Amino acid sequence: MKHFRSIADVPSLHELLDIAFELKKKPFKYRKLGKRKTVCLIFFNPSLRTRLSSQRAATNLGMETIVFNVDKESWKIELEDKVVMNGAAAEHIKEAAAVIGQYAEIIGVRSFATLQDRQADYAEKVLESFVKYAGRPIISLESATRHPLQSLADLITIEEFKTKARPKVVLSWAPHPHALPQAVPNSFVEWMKVAPVELVVTHPEGYELAPEFIENVKVEYDQNKAFEGADFIYAKNWSSYSEYGKVLSQDSSWMITAEKMRLTNNAKFMHCLPVRRNQIVTDEVLDSPSSIVIPQAANRVAAAQAVYYQILRSM
Amino acid sequence: MKHFRSIADVPSLHELLDIAFELKKKPFKYRKLGKRKTVCLIFFNPSLRTRLSSQRAATNLGMETIVFNVDKESWKIELEDKVVMNGAAAEHIKEAAAVIGQYAEIIGVRSFATLQDRQADYAEKVLESFVKYAGRPIISLESATRHPLQSLADLITIEEFKTKARPKVVLSWAPHPHALPQAVPNSFVEWMKVAPVELVVTHPEGYELAPEFIENVKVEYDQNKAFEGADFIYAKNWSSYSEYGKVLSQDSSWMITAEKMRLTNNAKFMHCLPVRRNQIVTDEVLDSPSSIVIPQAANRVAAAQAVYYQILRSM
Amino acid sequence: MKHFRSIADVPSLHELLDIAFELKKKPFKYRKLGKRKTVCLIFFNPSLRTRLSSQRAATNLGMETIVFNVDKESWKIELEDKVVMNGAAAEHIKEAAAVIGQYAEIIGVRSFATLQDRQADYAEKVLESFVKYAGRPIISLESATRHPLQSLADLITIEEFKTKARPKVVLSWAPHPHALPQAVPNSFVEWMKVAPVELVVTHPEGYELAPEFIENVKVEYDQNKAFEGADFIYAKNWSSYSEYGKVLSQDSSWMITAEKMRLTNNAKFMHCLPVRRNQIVTDEVLDSPSSIVIPQAANRVAAAQAVYYQILRSM
Repeated sequence: MKHFRSIADVPSLHELLDIAFELKKKPFKYRKLGKRKTVCLIFFNPSLRTRLSSQRAATNLGMETIVFNVDKESWKIELEDKVVMNGAAAEHIKEAAAVIGQYAEIIGVRSFATLQDRQADYAEKVLESFVKYAGRPIISLESATRHPLQSLADLITIEEFKTKARPKVVLSWAPHPHALPQAVPNSFVEWMKVAPVELVVTHPEGYELAPEFIENVKVEYDQNKAFEGADFIYAKNWSSYSEYGKVLSQDSSWMITAEKMRLTNNAKFMHCLPVRRNQIVTDEVLDSPSSIVIPQAANRVAAAQAVYYQILRSM
Repeated sequence: MKHFRSIADVPSLHELLDIAFELKKKPFKYRKLGKRKTVCLIFFNPSLRTRLSSQRAATNLGMETIVFNVDKESWKIELEDKVVMNGAAAEHIKEAAAVIGQYAEIIGVRSFATLQDRQADYAEKVLESFVKYAGRPIISLESATRHPLQSLADLITIEEFKTKARPKVVLSWAPHPHALPQAVPNSFVEWMKVAPVELVVTHPEGYELAPEFIENVKVEYDQNKAFEGADFIYAKNWSSYSEYGKVLSQDSSWMITAEKMRLTNNAKFMHCLPVRRNQIVTDEVLDSPSSIVIPQAANRVAAAQAVYYQILRSM
Repeated sequence: MKHFRSIADVPSLHELLDIAFELKKKPFKYRKLGKRKTVCLIFFNPSLRTRLSSQRAATNLGMETIVFNVDKESWKIELEDKVVMNGAAAEHIKEAAAVIGQYAEIIGVRSFATLQDRQADYAEKVLESFVKYAGRPIISLESATRHPLQSLADLITIEEFKTKARPKVVLSWAPHPHALPQAVPNSFVEWMKVAPVELVVTHPEGYELAPEFIENVKVEYDQNKAFEGADFIYAKNWSSYSEYGKVLSQDSSWMITAEKMRLTNNAKFMHCLPVRRNQIVTDEVLDSPSSIVIPQAANRVAAAQAVYYQILRSM
C-alpha cells in the first residue's frame, strides 16, 4: 500500500483485515518493521481517538511518533497556487509538506472540510498536496470527504460482532445542533459497499450523500422501515451535500431510541464518537449491552496498525 | 496499588518511600517492568513540573507516554449525567474515559477545582469518572482537592533533609493575588498526618481547610508563634473553603521573609512551585541556602516513578 | 561543546562539520550515546522545522524528547529580577529553568526577539537565564539575536552544493509585510565570516545589521551589483536594527526574481523557510532546479544531531 486516503488505496481488503486481526491478537509481533522509522501525525483540527490510537499503533510497531498540531503550534498554511503571500499565511503547503517529508518516513494528516466551498472540500486540497509534495506515504487521519481509518475500524468491529454471514447494516442520520462534515458517512458507505453486508442508508430528504458515494446504495427515507431486521445500526449526523454544509433538520424524532432499536433484529449500536447523548442517541441505548461503541473505538488501534504495517511492507 | 488519588490509595507508605529512594538512586533499574506499556497523561489544566516529571519518570521505567491536553487539543467534555448534549460539550466523559482506557495501560489525569461550586469540586467528578469508566489504573496529576504526587515528593524531600527523627513541619498560608485551589494544602496535611513529623498549620482566620483534612491537626493563627522551632516551612496560598473560592486576605505581612525564618530552628524553606517571588516569599529566602524548592521539584520524578512502579507491579 | 548559542560556542567548526556529514550518512550510528538521555525542547514561540528536526535528530541518537510549548501549555514566566510578582507571571525563570534542568539532560530553547526593546533582545535574557539557572547544556532553537542550528544547516548545504573552493555567497534582504527579527541574518553572517566563502550582504539603506555582526563584512546597497557572479543567493527579510524593529521598506523591487538570478553565476537559491511566495521570491525561482530550500531544510536534522553529538560527548 502506497498511501491510505480511501478504500481505493487498499490493494486487498481481505489481506488488510487479516493483518488487522493478527495485530489485534499480537500487537507487538512486528516491532522490527517500524524500528528507526518515524511517523509524523499532522493535525489541522482537534482529535482524540485518531490522535491517541495512531500514536499507540505506531508505538506497538516500534515506530517513533511526532505529533504536530499545525493549527496551534505553527502558522497559517497557504493552499492556493500563484498567490502573492502578503496575508496571514506564512508558509505554502508546497514547502511545509516537502519539509515534513524530510523528517519522517510516514505522514498522517487530519484536515476537515470547511463546509464553505463544496468544490474545494471535495478536491481534498490539503491531503492531496501532502501526497503531491511530501514524497512520503500519506495516511488520512480524516480528510474533508473521508475517514478511512474509522471505516476500517468499523468493518473490523462488524466482522467481530456479526452473527450471520451477510448482516444488514443501517447507516442512520441523527440530529445535531451544528453542521458536520460528510466524511464519516461517505467513507462508511464506500467501505460497506465492498464488504459482505446488506447496506441501507436512512436520512431525511435533503441529506443525500454525494452521488459518487451513494450510487448503487439503497436509501430508505423511512427510518423505522430501514431499521426492520437490521443487525447493526450505525448512527451519525452530517450536514447537507446538496445545500452544502447546511443544517436542514434538527428533527429529534430521528434520534436513536430504545423503541427504535426494538424494530431491529436485536441490532448492535455503533457510532464513531464523539457522540452527543440524548441528541444523537439516548442514554438508554448507549448504556445498553447492544452498544458496541467502545470496542469499536478500541479497534482504531488495530486499524491504524494494519495500515502502518502494509505501508511499511511496501517501503 | 490500584489507583493513586490520595494517601488512602497507598497500601504501605513505608514501601512506597523505600521504592522511591531506590528509584532515585537507580532510575533505570526496572525498565523491563514498563516495557510495551503506555501511560496517557491527560491535562484539563496547564502543567510544567507534573507534566515533565511524569513523562520523565515513565521514560525511566521503559514506558511510552502520550501527552494529551484535553483543554487545547480536544473539545469540551460533558460531566453531568442524563443531560441533552446540545450545548458546547461534544463528548461525555463516560465515552472519553472508556476510549482512552483502550489506548493506554495507565492514565494520569489533571483536573483543577473550578472554585465555583464546592460540592462539585469536592465530589472529584472528573477524576472519579476516569476511575469509574476508564477501566485502568488512574493517577491523579492534581485533582480538585488533592495533589498526591506533590505530597509524596514533599515527604521524600523532608526525609532527605530532616536532621531529627520527628521534625516540626509548618504549613503556612501566604498571600497571592488570585484565588487558588486547596488541593496542595489538603494533600500535604493528609500526608503529613501519617508521616513522622509534628505538623502545625498557620493561616489567617477564614482560611480553615475542609474539616475532613484539618481534623486532628494543630492550627496556630499566629504565624510567628507557629514558626518557632520549625524545621521546615512549607509556604502555599489557598483560597477560602468556608467562603468557597474567595480571597479573604492579601495581607502581605504573611509573606515569608528572612526575618520570619530567623524565628525557626534554621528551617528549610519549601514550596510546590510555581511561586510568586516577593509575594509569597522574598527573593532573600528563596535564593538562600535554606531554600530546597529545587531538590523538592526534582523529587517529583522519584515520586511519579514510585507510583508507576507500584501500579505496574499490581497489574 | 558545553552550550550551543552561537558559533562562539563551537570549539572546532571543522570537527562539527565532519560529524554532521558522518551522521547524515549514518544517522543511527551513535544511538548508544543518547541512551537513557532526555532532551527537553522548550518553545516560547511557534516552530515547524526546528521542532520536528530537533525531535528527529534526538530520536536518531537514541534520546527521548519532551516537547514543551511554554506559551501554550504553561503560564507567563517572569524574566526580571527583584520584582514583586503580583501580575500575570506566575513563575520566575530562575525556578522554571532550574526545575526543567532536573528533568532533562539537555535543554533546547526557542525564544524570539520581541522587537520592542533592542537592549533587552540583544541581552538574550531568556536563553542566558537558562544557561545560568538550568545547570544543563543549553541549545538555542533560535534566540532573539541568532539561529545557529539554521546557520549550521546552511553551511552544510553550501558545502554540499558548492562547485568551487570559495563560492560567492550573497545574503539579500527581501520585502515582507511584517517586522521580523534579525536572528537569521545575524547568525548567517557570523557563520559565513568563518566559512570558506566570499560573503556579500545586500539590503536597502537603514537595514544595516548590528555592528558586532556586520563588522568586516562587505555590504553592497545595489542588489543587482551584489548578485553578479554569486554562487549562492540567500534571501531573508529582517526589520531595521537602527530604527529597531521597524519596517522601513516594502519595496517589491527587492523580491528575488528569475531575472535577478540570471545576473548570478547560475546561483543556488536558499532560504531558511517559512518563505512567502511572490513576496520574498517568485514561484518561478522557488520552483526552479536552482532552489535548494528543501535539501537545506533537510540538513536541519544533521545540524541538530551534530550539536547533540558534541554535547553528549562532553557530558
